[in-house]
Amino acid sequence: MTPYFTEDASVETVNARMGKNISPRLAEVMACLVKHLHAFAKEVHLTQEEWDYGIDFLTKTGQICSGERQEFILLSDTLGFSMLVDAINNRRPAGATENTVFGPFHVDGAPELPMGSNISLDGKGESCLFEGAVIDLHGNPIRGARVDVWSDNADGFYDVQQPGIQPKWNNRGIFVTGADGRYSFVGIKPVCYPIPDDGPVGKMLGHLGRHPYRPAHMHYLVTAPGYEKLVTHTFVGDDAYIDSDAVFGVKKTLVAPFEKLKDAATAWHSPFDFVLTPV
Amino acid sequence: MTPYFTEDASVETVNARMGKNISPRLAEVMACLVKHLHAFAKEVHLTQEEWDYGIDFLTKTGQICSGERQEFILLSDTLGFSMLVDAINNRRPAGATENTVFGPFHVDGAPELPMGSNISLDGKGESCLFEGAVIDLHGNPIRGARVDVWSDNADGFYDVQQPGIQPKWNNRGIFVTGADGRYSFVGIKPVCYPIPDDGPVGKMLGHLGRHPYRPAHMHYLVTAPGYEKLVTHTFVGDDAYIDSDAVFGVKKTLVAPFEKLKDAATAWHSPFDFVLTPV
Repeated sequence: MTPYFTEDASVETVNARMGKNISPRLAEVMACLVKHLHAFAKEVHLTQEEWDYGIDFLTKTGQICSGERQEFILLSDTLGFSMLVDAINNRRPAGATENTVFGPFHVDGAPELPMGSNISLDGKGESCLFEGAVIDLHGNPIRGARVDVWSDNADGFYDVQQPGIQPKWNNRGIFVTGADGRYSFVGIKPVCYPIPDDGPVGKMLGHLGRHPYRPAHMHYLVTAPGYEKLVTHTFVGDDAYIDSDAVFGVKKTLVAPFEKLKDAATAWHSPFDFVLTPV
Repeated sequence: MTPYFTEDASVETVNARMGKNISPRLAEVMACLVKHLHAFAKEVHLTQEEWDYGIDFLTKTGQICSGERQEFILLSDTLGFSMLVDAINNRRPAGATENTVFGPFHVDGAPELPMGSNISLDGKGESCLFEGAVIDLHGNPIRGARVDVWSDNADGFYDVQQPGIQPKWNNRGIFVTGADGRYSFVGIKPVCYPIPDDGPVGKMLGHLGRHPYRPAHMHYLVTAPGYEKLVTHTFVGDDAYIDSDAVFGVKKTLVAPFEKLKDAATAWHSPFDFVLTPV
Protein backbone atom coordinates (compact mmCIF):
# COMPACT_ATOMS: atom_id res chain seq x y z
CA MET A 1 0.00 0.00 0.00
CA THR A 2 1.24 3.51 -0.77
CA PRO A 3 1.98 5.51 2.39
CA TYR A 4 0.60 8.63 0.65
CA PHE A 5 -2.85 10.01 1.24
CA THR A 6 -5.76 9.16 -1.03
CA GLU A 7 -9.43 9.79 -0.38
CA ASP A 8 -10.36 6.16 -1.03
CA ALA A 9 -7.76 4.62 1.28
CA SER A 10 -7.82 7.35 3.93
CA VAL A 11 -8.70 5.01 6.80
CA GLU A 12 -6.11 2.38 5.91
CA THR A 13 -3.39 5.01 5.43
CA VAL A 14 -4.02 6.57 8.85
CA ASN A 15 -4.33 3.29 10.70
CA ALA A 16 -1.25 1.76 9.04
CA ARG A 17 0.78 4.49 10.71
CA MET A 18 0.37 3.07 14.21
CA GLY A 19 3.48 1.56 15.75
CA LYS A 20 3.89 -2.14 16.41
CA ASN A 21 4.58 -2.06 20.13
CA ILE A 22 1.55 -0.16 21.35
CA SER A 23 -1.38 -1.26 23.50
CA PRO A 24 -3.46 -3.68 21.39
CA ARG A 25 -6.65 -2.27 22.91
CA LEU A 26 -5.62 1.32 22.09
CA ALA A 27 -4.87 0.23 18.53
CA GLU A 28 -8.28 -1.42 18.27
CA VAL A 29 -10.20 1.56 19.66
CA MET A 30 -8.34 4.16 17.59
CA ALA A 31 -8.58 2.18 14.34
CA CYS A 32 -12.34 1.89 14.83
CA LEU A 33 -12.67 5.57 15.74
CA VAL A 34 -10.76 6.64 12.62
CA LYS A 35 -12.88 4.31 10.50
CA HIS A 36 -16.15 5.79 11.73
CA LEU A 37 -14.95 9.41 11.73
CA HIS A 38 -13.85 9.13 8.11
CA ALA A 39 -17.05 7.29 7.14
CA PHE A 40 -19.04 10.14 8.67
CA ALA A 41 -17.20 12.82 6.66
CA LYS A 42 -17.49 10.82 3.45
CA GLU A 43 -21.16 9.99 3.91
CA VAL A 44 -22.29 13.59 4.47
CA HIS A 45 -19.62 15.12 2.20
CA LEU A 46 -18.56 17.39 5.05
CA THR A 47 -17.70 20.88 3.78
CA GLN A 48 -14.72 22.95 4.84
CA GLU A 49 -17.08 25.45 6.50
CA GLU A 50 -18.78 22.67 8.48
CA TRP A 51 -15.36 21.41 9.57
CA ASP A 52 -14.47 24.97 10.70
CA TYR A 53 -17.73 25.11 12.66
CA GLY A 54 -17.04 21.74 14.26
CA ILE A 55 -13.52 22.72 15.34
CA ASP A 56 -14.87 25.94 16.85
CA PHE A 57 -17.70 24.05 18.62
CA LEU A 58 -15.33 21.50 20.18
CA THR A 59 -12.94 24.24 21.25
CA LYS A 60 -15.71 26.24 22.97
CA THR A 61 -17.00 23.05 24.59
CA GLY A 62 -13.57 22.42 26.10
CA GLN A 63 -13.03 25.98 27.17
CA ILE A 64 -16.27 26.30 29.18
CA CYS A 65 -15.31 23.23 31.25
CA SER A 66 -14.19 23.95 34.81
CA GLY A 67 -14.05 22.24 38.19
CA GLU A 68 -17.82 22.79 38.45
CA ARG A 69 -18.87 22.21 34.86
CA GLN A 70 -18.23 19.39 32.38
CA GLU A 71 -19.60 20.39 28.99
CA PHE A 72 -18.14 17.37 27.16
CA ILE A 73 -20.09 15.04 29.46
CA LEU A 74 -23.16 17.13 28.67
CA LEU A 75 -22.40 16.71 24.96
CA SER A 76 -22.02 12.96 25.40
CA ASP A 77 -25.26 12.86 27.41
CA THR A 78 -27.32 14.84 24.91
CA LEU A 79 -26.15 12.69 21.98
CA GLY A 80 -27.23 9.54 23.84
CA PHE A 81 -23.60 8.44 23.96
CA SER A 82 -23.40 8.28 27.78
CA MET A 83 -26.52 6.12 27.95
CA LEU A 84 -25.15 3.87 25.22
CA VAL A 85 -21.84 3.31 27.04
CA ASP A 86 -23.80 2.67 30.25
CA ALA A 87 -26.03 0.16 28.45
CA ILE A 88 -23.16 -1.67 26.75
CA ASN A 89 -21.39 -2.12 30.09
CA ASN A 90 -24.43 -3.09 32.13
CA ARG A 91 -26.28 -5.74 30.16
CA ARG A 92 -28.43 -7.70 32.60
CA PRO A 93 -30.71 -10.71 32.50
CA ALA A 94 -34.46 -10.21 32.11
CA GLY A 95 -36.06 -9.27 35.39
CA ALA A 96 -33.05 -7.43 36.78
CA THR A 97 -33.44 -3.69 37.36
CA GLU A 98 -31.87 -1.72 34.53
CA ASN A 99 -29.10 0.82 34.89
CA THR A 100 -29.23 4.43 33.82
CA VAL A 101 -26.71 7.28 33.91
CA PHE A 102 -25.09 8.23 37.22
CA GLY A 103 -25.29 11.98 36.67
CA PRO A 104 -23.06 14.66 38.18
CA PHE A 105 -24.91 15.24 41.47
CA HIS A 106 -24.09 12.23 43.63
CA VAL A 107 -22.11 13.05 46.77
CA ASP A 108 -20.20 10.47 48.77
CA GLY A 109 -20.79 10.30 52.49
CA ALA A 110 -24.51 11.03 52.80
CA PRO A 111 -25.91 10.20 56.26
CA GLU A 112 -27.08 6.66 56.93
CA LEU A 113 -30.62 7.01 58.27
CA PRO A 114 -33.25 4.81 59.98
CA MET A 115 -35.88 3.35 57.70
CA GLY A 116 -38.78 5.72 57.12
CA SER A 117 -36.73 8.89 57.72
CA ASN A 118 -37.64 12.09 55.95
CA ILE A 119 -34.77 13.30 53.73
CA SER A 120 -36.46 16.53 52.64
CA LEU A 121 -34.94 19.09 55.01
CA ASP A 122 -36.14 22.34 53.46
CA GLY A 123 -39.89 21.79 53.90
CA LYS A 124 -40.56 22.39 50.20
CA GLY A 125 -42.49 20.22 47.77
CA GLU A 126 -45.07 17.45 47.93
CA SER A 127 -44.08 14.68 50.32
CA CYS A 128 -43.76 11.19 48.96
CA LEU A 129 -43.21 7.80 50.59
CA PHE A 130 -40.71 5.70 48.64
CA GLU A 131 -40.64 2.04 49.59
CA GLY A 132 -39.97 -1.43 48.31
CA ALA A 133 -37.51 -4.27 48.57
CA VAL A 134 -34.06 -5.10 47.33
CA ILE A 135 -34.28 -8.65 45.99
CA ASP A 136 -32.39 -11.13 43.86
CA LEU A 137 -33.50 -12.60 40.54
CA HIS A 138 -35.53 -15.25 42.38
CA GLY A 139 -37.37 -12.72 44.52
CA ASN A 140 -35.40 -13.43 47.69
CA PRO A 141 -34.74 -10.40 49.92
CA ILE A 142 -31.16 -9.12 50.08
CA ARG A 143 -29.96 -8.20 53.55
CA GLY A 144 -27.38 -5.47 54.05
CA ALA A 145 -28.02 -3.69 50.76
CA ARG A 146 -27.08 0.00 50.86
CA VAL A 147 -29.71 2.13 49.14
CA ASP A 148 -28.12 5.54 48.50
CA VAL A 149 -30.75 8.03 47.27
CA TRP A 150 -30.71 11.63 46.04
CA SER A 151 -33.02 14.01 44.21
CA ASP A 152 -33.52 17.67 43.45
CA ASN A 153 -35.68 19.82 45.72
CA ALA A 154 -39.05 21.30 44.74
CA ASP A 155 -37.27 24.20 42.97
CA GLY A 156 -35.42 21.77 40.67
CA PHE A 157 -31.97 22.10 42.26
CA TYR A 158 -29.76 19.61 44.08
CA ASP A 159 -28.35 20.77 47.41
CA VAL A 160 -24.83 20.99 45.96
CA GLN A 161 -26.08 23.48 43.37
CA GLN A 162 -27.32 25.79 46.13
CA PRO A 163 -24.82 25.70 49.00
CA GLY A 164 -25.94 28.07 51.74
CA ILE A 165 -29.47 28.12 50.35
CA GLN A 166 -30.46 24.49 50.83
CA PRO A 167 -29.60 22.58 54.02
CA LYS A 168 -26.63 20.24 53.66
CA TRP A 169 -27.72 16.71 52.66
CA ASN A 170 -31.16 17.99 51.62
CA ASN A 171 -32.93 15.16 49.76
CA ARG A 172 -30.10 12.68 50.32
CA GLY A 173 -29.68 9.64 52.51
CA ILE A 174 -28.50 6.04 52.76
CA PHE A 175 -30.76 3.21 53.96
CA VAL A 176 -29.40 -0.25 54.76
CA THR A 177 -31.77 -3.18 54.44
CA GLY A 178 -32.41 -5.75 57.15
CA ALA A 179 -33.32 -9.40 56.74
CA ASP A 180 -36.56 -8.53 54.91
CA GLY A 181 -34.65 -6.58 52.22
CA ARG A 182 -37.08 -3.69 52.55
CA TYR A 183 -36.34 0.01 52.38
CA SER A 184 -38.52 3.05 52.96
CA PHE A 185 -38.01 6.77 53.25
CA VAL A 186 -39.95 9.98 52.83
CA GLY A 187 -38.78 12.51 50.28
CA ILE A 188 -40.59 14.73 47.82
CA LYS A 189 -42.16 13.89 44.51
CA PRO A 190 -39.20 15.09 42.38
CA VAL A 191 -39.62 17.78 39.74
CA CYS A 192 -38.18 18.22 36.25
CA TYR A 193 -35.24 20.56 35.66
CA PRO A 194 -33.08 21.77 32.75
CA ILE A 195 -29.50 20.71 32.23
CA PRO A 196 -27.14 23.72 31.94
CA ASP A 197 -28.10 25.26 28.61
CA ASP A 198 -26.14 28.51 28.52
CA GLY A 199 -23.11 26.95 26.77
CA PRO A 200 -22.30 25.32 23.41
CA VAL A 201 -24.40 22.23 24.16
CA GLY A 202 -27.43 24.35 25.02
CA LYS A 203 -26.99 26.18 21.72
CA MET A 204 -26.73 22.86 19.92
CA LEU A 205 -29.99 21.68 21.49
CA GLY A 206 -31.63 24.92 20.36
CA HIS A 207 -30.45 24.42 16.76
CA LEU A 208 -31.73 20.83 16.90
CA GLY A 209 -35.17 21.94 18.08
CA ARG A 210 -34.71 20.18 21.42
CA HIS A 211 -35.42 21.35 24.98
CA PRO A 212 -32.89 20.91 27.82
CA TYR A 213 -35.21 19.30 30.41
CA ARG A 214 -34.88 16.08 32.33
CA PRO A 215 -38.13 14.53 33.54
CA ALA A 216 -38.52 14.25 37.34
CA HIS A 217 -36.62 11.34 38.86
CA MET A 218 -35.22 9.91 42.09
CA HIS A 219 -31.62 8.68 41.95
CA TYR A 220 -30.56 5.34 43.41
CA LEU A 221 -27.18 3.71 43.93
CA VAL A 222 -27.83 0.24 45.30
CA THR A 223 -24.95 -1.96 46.39
CA ALA A 224 -24.79 -5.27 48.19
CA PRO A 225 -21.96 -7.80 48.67
CA GLY A 226 -22.06 -10.44 45.94
CA TYR A 227 -24.20 -8.34 43.59
CA GLU A 228 -23.50 -5.97 40.70
CA LYS A 229 -23.65 -2.29 41.56
CA LEU A 230 -26.94 -0.80 40.39
CA VAL A 231 -26.96 2.85 39.29
CA THR A 232 -30.44 3.93 38.33
CA HIS A 233 -33.33 6.37 38.65
CA THR A 234 -37.05 5.93 39.05
CA PHE A 235 -39.07 8.33 36.90
CA VAL A 236 -42.35 10.14 37.43
CA GLY A 237 -44.56 8.86 34.60
CA ASP A 238 -46.84 11.88 34.31
CA ASP A 239 -43.94 14.30 33.85
CA ALA A 240 -44.26 16.57 30.80
CA TYR A 241 -40.79 15.47 29.66
CA ILE A 242 -41.06 11.72 30.33
CA ASP A 243 -40.90 10.99 26.58
CA SER A 244 -38.13 13.49 25.82
CA ASP A 245 -35.42 13.35 28.50
CA ALA A 246 -32.63 15.62 27.23
CA VAL A 247 -30.05 12.95 28.16
CA PHE A 248 -32.12 9.87 27.13
CA GLY A 249 -31.97 8.41 30.66
CA VAL A 250 -35.50 7.02 30.70
CA LYS A 251 -36.01 3.30 30.24
CA LYS A 252 -39.50 1.87 30.12
CA THR A 253 -38.95 -0.35 33.17
CA LEU A 254 -37.78 2.61 35.28
CA VAL A 255 -41.04 4.57 35.08
CA ALA A 256 -42.35 4.04 38.61
CA PRO A 257 -45.84 4.33 40.09
CA PHE A 258 -46.50 7.63 41.86
CA GLU A 259 -49.88 7.27 43.58
CA LYS A 260 -51.69 10.25 45.08
CA LEU A 261 -52.74 9.57 48.67
CA LYS A 262 -55.85 11.17 50.14
CA ASP A 263 -56.22 12.11 53.77
CA ALA A 264 -52.68 10.98 54.59
CA ALA A 265 -49.79 12.90 56.09
CA THR A 266 -47.78 11.97 53.00
CA ALA A 267 -49.15 13.23 49.65
CA TRP A 268 -47.69 10.53 47.37
CA HIS A 269 -46.62 6.92 47.44
CA SER A 270 -44.02 5.41 45.08
CA PRO A 271 -43.41 1.66 45.47
CA PHE A 272 -40.47 0.14 43.59
CA ASP A 273 -38.42 -3.03 44.02
CA PHE A 274 -34.77 -3.26 43.00
CA VAL A 275 -33.70 -6.59 41.53
CA LEU A 276 -29.94 -7.13 41.70
CA THR A 277 -27.79 -9.42 39.57
CA PRO A 278 -25.13 -11.61 41.17
CA VAL A 279 -21.54 -10.76 40.26
CA MET B 1 -41.24 3.48 18.23
CA THR B 2 -40.85 3.81 21.99
CA PRO B 3 -39.30 7.13 23.01
CA TYR B 4 -37.36 5.33 25.75
CA PHE B 5 -33.73 4.36 25.47
CA THR B 6 -32.69 0.88 24.36
CA GLU B 7 -29.22 -0.23 23.33
CA ASP B 8 -30.46 -1.64 20.02
CA ALA B 9 -32.40 1.44 18.93
CA SER B 10 -30.06 4.02 20.44
CA VAL B 11 -29.41 5.83 17.14
CA GLU B 12 -33.05 6.01 16.12
CA THR B 13 -34.12 7.19 19.58
CA VAL B 14 -31.61 10.03 19.62
CA ASN B 15 -32.24 11.14 16.05
CA ALA B 16 -36.02 11.00 16.40
CA ARG B 17 -35.71 13.72 19.02
CA MET B 18 -34.75 16.42 16.51
CA GLY B 19 -37.36 19.09 15.88
CA LYS B 20 -39.23 19.45 12.62
CA ASN B 21 -38.32 23.02 11.75
CA ILE B 22 -34.55 22.83 11.87
CA SER B 23 -31.95 23.17 9.14
CA PRO B 24 -32.25 20.09 6.91
CA ARG B 25 -28.49 20.04 6.47
CA LEU B 26 -27.88 20.21 10.23
CA ALA B 27 -30.34 17.35 10.69
CA GLU B 28 -28.52 15.30 8.05
CA VAL B 29 -25.04 15.94 9.48
CA MET B 30 -26.06 15.30 13.11
CA ALA B 31 -28.03 12.15 12.32
CA CYS B 32 -25.00 10.75 10.51
CA LEU B 33 -22.64 11.78 13.30
CA VAL B 34 -24.81 10.09 15.94
CA LYS B 35 -25.05 6.96 13.80
CA HIS B 36 -21.27 6.65 13.46
CA LEU B 37 -20.48 7.63 17.06
CA HIS B 38 -22.84 4.97 18.39
CA ALA B 39 -21.57 2.39 15.89
CA PHE B 40 -18.03 3.09 17.13
CA ALA B 41 -18.97 2.52 20.80
CA LYS B 42 -20.90 -0.64 19.97
CA GLU B 43 -18.20 -2.08 17.72
CA VAL B 44 -15.38 -1.73 20.26
CA HIS B 45 -17.60 -2.28 23.31
CA LEU B 46 -16.29 0.97 24.78
CA THR B 47 -15.79 0.66 28.55
CA GLN B 48 -16.76 3.25 31.13
CA GLU B 49 -13.08 3.84 31.90
CA GLU B 50 -12.32 4.44 28.22
CA TRP B 51 -15.23 6.88 28.05
CA ASP B 52 -13.81 8.70 31.10
CA TYR B 53 -10.42 8.86 29.39
CA GLY B 54 -11.97 10.22 26.21
CA ILE B 55 -13.91 12.94 28.04
CA ASP B 56 -10.73 13.97 29.84
CA PHE B 57 -8.72 13.94 26.59
CA LEU B 58 -11.24 16.15 24.76
CA THR B 59 -11.41 18.53 27.71
CA LYS B 60 -7.63 18.92 27.86
CA THR B 61 -7.51 19.36 24.09
CA GLY B 62 -9.97 22.25 24.34
CA GLN B 63 -8.29 23.83 27.30
CA ILE B 64 -4.83 24.06 25.72
CA CYS B 65 -6.29 25.98 22.76
CA SER B 66 -5.48 29.70 22.67
CA GLY B 67 -5.14 32.50 20.16
CA GLU B 68 -1.80 31.00 19.15
CA ARG B 69 -2.60 27.31 19.41
CA GLN B 70 -5.39 25.15 17.97
CA GLU B 71 -5.08 21.64 19.39
CA PHE B 72 -8.38 20.41 17.90
CA ILE B 73 -7.08 21.21 14.40
CA LEU B 74 -3.94 19.30 15.32
CA LEU B 75 -6.12 16.38 16.42
CA SER B 76 -8.06 16.52 13.15
CA ASP B 77 -4.78 16.71 11.22
CA THR B 78 -3.15 13.77 12.96
CA LEU B 79 -6.20 11.54 12.46
CA GLY B 80 -6.15 12.28 8.72
CA PHE B 81 -9.51 14.01 9.09
CA SER B 82 -8.31 17.41 7.80
CA MET B 83 -6.80 15.82 4.70
CA LEU B 84 -9.99 13.85 4.13
CA VAL B 85 -12.20 16.96 4.29
CA ASP B 86 -9.75 18.73 1.98
CA ALA B 87 -9.85 15.83 -0.48
CA ILE B 88 -13.64 15.52 -0.46
CA ASN B 89 -14.02 19.20 -1.25
CA ASN B 90 -11.30 19.43 -3.88
CA ARG B 91 -11.84 16.53 -6.24
CA ARG B 92 -10.15 17.40 -9.54
CA PRO B 93 -9.81 15.87 -12.98
CA ALA B 94 -6.73 13.80 -13.81
CA GLY B 95 -3.78 16.00 -14.65
CA ALA B 96 -4.78 18.86 -12.36
CA THR B 97 -2.46 19.61 -9.43
CA GLU B 98 -3.82 18.11 -6.22
CA ASN B 99 -4.67 20.03 -3.08
CA THR B 100 -3.24 19.43 0.35
CA VAL B 101 -3.86 21.04 3.75
CA PHE B 102 -3.46 24.79 4.14
CA GLY B 103 -1.72 24.63 7.51
CA PRO B 104 -1.67 27.31 10.20
CA PHE B 105 1.32 29.35 8.98
CA HIS B 106 0.04 31.29 5.98
CA VAL B 107 0.02 35.08 6.45
CA ASP B 108 -2.00 37.44 4.27
CA GLY B 109 -0.18 40.39 2.70
CA ALA B 110 3.23 38.94 1.89
CA PRO B 111 5.24 41.19 -0.46
CA GLU B 112 4.74 40.82 -4.21
CA LEU B 113 8.24 40.34 -5.64
CA PRO B 114 9.91 40.34 -9.07
CA MET B 115 10.46 36.90 -10.62
CA GLY B 116 13.70 35.31 -9.44
CA SER B 117 13.78 37.16 -6.11
CA ASN B 118 15.36 35.53 -3.07
CA ILE B 119 12.82 35.11 -0.27
CA SER B 120 15.30 33.72 2.26
CA LEU B 121 16.21 36.78 4.32
CA ASP B 122 18.13 35.21 7.19
CA GLY B 123 20.98 33.75 5.18
CA LYS B 124 20.45 30.28 6.62
CA GLY B 125 20.01 27.01 4.76
CA GLU B 126 20.83 25.60 1.34
CA SER B 127 19.62 27.86 -1.47
CA CYS B 128 17.16 26.43 -3.97
CA LEU B 129 15.75 27.73 -7.24
CA PHE B 130 12.02 27.00 -7.51
CA GLU B 131 10.57 27.45 -10.97
CA GLY B 132 7.93 26.26 -13.36
CA ALA B 133 4.71 27.34 -15.01
CA VAL B 134 1.10 27.84 -14.06
CA ILE B 135 -0.91 26.15 -16.81
CA ASP B 136 -4.40 24.92 -17.58
CA LEU B 137 -5.47 21.33 -18.22
CA HIS B 138 -4.42 21.67 -21.90
CA GLY B 139 -0.96 22.95 -21.04
CA ASN B 140 -1.67 26.57 -21.92
CA PRO B 141 0.07 29.17 -19.73
CA ILE B 142 -2.10 31.16 -17.33
CA ARG B 143 -1.32 34.86 -17.20
CA GLY B 144 -1.89 36.83 -14.00
CA ALA B 145 -1.75 33.85 -11.65
CA ARG B 146 -0.70 34.79 -8.10
CA VAL B 147 1.77 32.30 -6.68
CA ASP B 148 1.87 32.87 -2.91
CA VAL B 149 4.70 30.82 -1.33
CA TRP B 150 5.92 30.16 2.21
CA SER B 151 8.21 27.75 4.01
CA ASP B 152 10.07 27.25 7.25
CA ASN B 153 13.65 28.42 7.61
CA ALA B 154 16.66 26.14 7.96
CA ASP B 155 15.99 25.77 11.70
CA GLY B 156 12.50 24.38 11.00
CA PHE B 157 10.50 27.45 12.09
CA TYR B 158 8.23 29.80 10.17
CA ASP B 159 8.91 33.50 10.64
CA VAL B 160 5.66 33.94 12.62
CA GLN B 161 6.87 31.37 15.13
CA GLN B 162 10.00 33.44 15.81
CA PRO B 163 9.06 37.12 15.75
CA GLY B 164 12.09 39.25 16.54
CA ILE B 165 14.40 36.35 15.71
CA GLN B 166 13.63 35.88 12.02
CA PRO B 167 13.25 38.87 9.65
CA LYS B 168 9.62 39.70 8.86
CA TRP B 169 8.45 37.91 5.67
CA ASN B 170 11.40 35.52 5.85
CA ASN B 171 10.77 32.74 3.29
CA ARG B 172 7.53 34.30 2.01
CA GLY B 173 6.58 36.08 -1.18
CA ILE B 174 4.02 36.44 -3.96
CA PHE B 175 4.91 36.09 -7.64
CA VAL B 176 2.49 37.07 -10.41
CA THR B 177 2.87 35.33 -13.76
CA GLY B 178 3.16 37.10 -17.10
CA ALA B 179 1.99 35.87 -20.50
CA ASP B 180 4.30 32.83 -20.37
CA GLY B 181 2.69 31.64 -17.11
CA ARG B 182 6.12 31.08 -15.60
CA TYR B 183 7.24 31.70 -12.03
CA SER B 184 10.64 31.52 -10.36
CA PHE B 185 12.11 32.40 -7.01
CA VAL B 186 15.03 31.48 -4.82
CA GLY B 187 14.34 30.11 -1.37
CA ILE B 188 15.92 27.35 0.68
CA LYS B 189 15.53 23.63 0.40
CA PRO B 190 12.96 23.31 3.22
CA VAL B 191 13.58 21.12 6.25
CA CYS B 192 11.34 18.81 8.27
CA TYR B 193 9.91 19.96 11.59
CA PRO B 194 7.68 18.60 14.36
CA ILE B 195 4.13 19.76 14.94
CA PRO B 196 3.62 20.96 18.54
CA ASP B 197 3.86 17.78 20.59
CA ASP B 198 3.82 19.01 24.18
CA GLY B 199 0.02 18.76 24.51
CA PRO B 200 -2.68 16.04 24.46
CA VAL B 201 -2.20 15.34 20.73
CA GLY B 202 1.54 14.87 21.16
CA LYS B 203 0.83 12.43 23.99
CA MET B 204 -1.64 10.61 21.75
CA LEU B 205 0.98 10.28 19.01
CA GLY B 206 3.40 8.87 21.58
CA HIS B 207 0.89 6.25 22.74
CA LEU B 208 0.24 5.35 19.07
CA GLY B 209 3.95 4.87 18.38
CA ARG B 210 3.99 7.78 15.95
CA HIS B 211 6.44 10.68 15.60
CA PRO B 212 5.29 14.31 15.26
CA TYR B 213 7.32 15.26 12.16
CA ARG B 214 6.23 16.74 8.87
CA PRO B 215 8.54 16.07 5.90
CA ALA B 216 10.14 19.15 4.33
CA HIS B 217 7.79 21.07 2.02
CA MET B 218 7.22 24.39 0.27
CA HIS B 219 3.71 25.84 0.59
CA TYR B 220 1.82 27.25 -2.38
CA LEU B 221 -1.44 29.14 -2.70
CA VAL B 222 -2.06 29.64 -6.42
CA THR B 223 -5.01 31.72 -7.59
CA ALA B 224 -6.04 32.99 -11.02
CA PRO B 225 -9.31 34.49 -12.30
CA GLY B 226 -11.52 31.76 -13.77
CA TYR B 227 -9.69 28.92 -12.00
CA GLU B 228 -10.20 27.01 -8.77
CA LYS B 229 -8.01 28.10 -5.88
CA LEU B 230 -5.11 25.66 -5.44
CA VAL B 231 -3.77 25.10 -1.91
CA THR B 232 -0.86 22.73 -1.97
CA HIS B 233 2.73 21.89 -1.02
CA THR B 234 5.63 20.42 -2.91
CA PHE B 235 7.56 17.85 -0.90
CA VAL B 236 11.24 16.95 -0.72
CA GLY B 237 11.31 13.29 -1.75
CA ASP B 238 14.46 12.27 0.11
CA ASP B 239 13.16 13.53 3.45
CA ALA B 240 13.35 10.97 6.28
CA TYR B 241 9.65 11.50 6.97
CA ILE B 242 8.32 11.55 3.39
CA ASP B 243 6.43 8.27 4.01
CA SER B 244 5.16 9.21 7.46
CA ASP B 245 3.94 12.83 7.50
CA ALA B 246 2.31 13.32 10.93
CA VAL B 247 -0.65 15.06 9.26
CA PHE B 248 -0.86 12.84 6.14
CA GLY B 249 -0.36 15.82 3.80
CA VAL B 250 1.79 14.01 1.25
CA LYS B 251 0.25 12.95 -2.04
CA LYS B 252 2.29 11.01 -4.54
CA THR B 253 1.95 13.70 -7.25
CA LEU B 254 3.21 16.41 -4.89
CA VAL B 255 6.66 14.90 -4.32
CA ALA B 256 8.78 17.29 -6.41
CA PRO B 257 12.23 16.95 -7.93
CA PHE B 258 14.99 18.54 -5.86
CA GLU B 259 18.17 18.38 -7.97
CA LYS B 260 21.59 19.16 -6.52
CA LEU B 261 23.44 21.70 -8.66
CA LYS B 262 27.22 21.66 -8.91
CA ASP B 263 29.33 24.76 -9.37
CA ALA B 264 26.27 27.04 -9.27
CA ALA B 265 25.45 29.95 -6.98
CA THR B 266 22.26 28.11 -6.07
CA ALA B 267 22.70 24.69 -4.42
CA TRP B 268 19.40 23.10 -5.49
CA HIS B 269 16.85 23.26 -8.28
CA SER B 270 13.17 22.29 -7.88
CA PRO B 271 11.06 22.51 -11.05
CA PHE B 272 7.29 22.09 -10.67
CA ASP B 273 4.31 23.08 -12.82
CA PHE B 274 0.91 23.92 -11.33
CA VAL B 275 -2.07 22.78 -13.38
CA LEU B 276 -5.25 24.67 -12.50
CA THR B 277 -8.85 23.57 -13.02
CA PRO B 278 -11.42 26.00 -14.44
CA VAL B 279 -14.20 27.00 -12.06
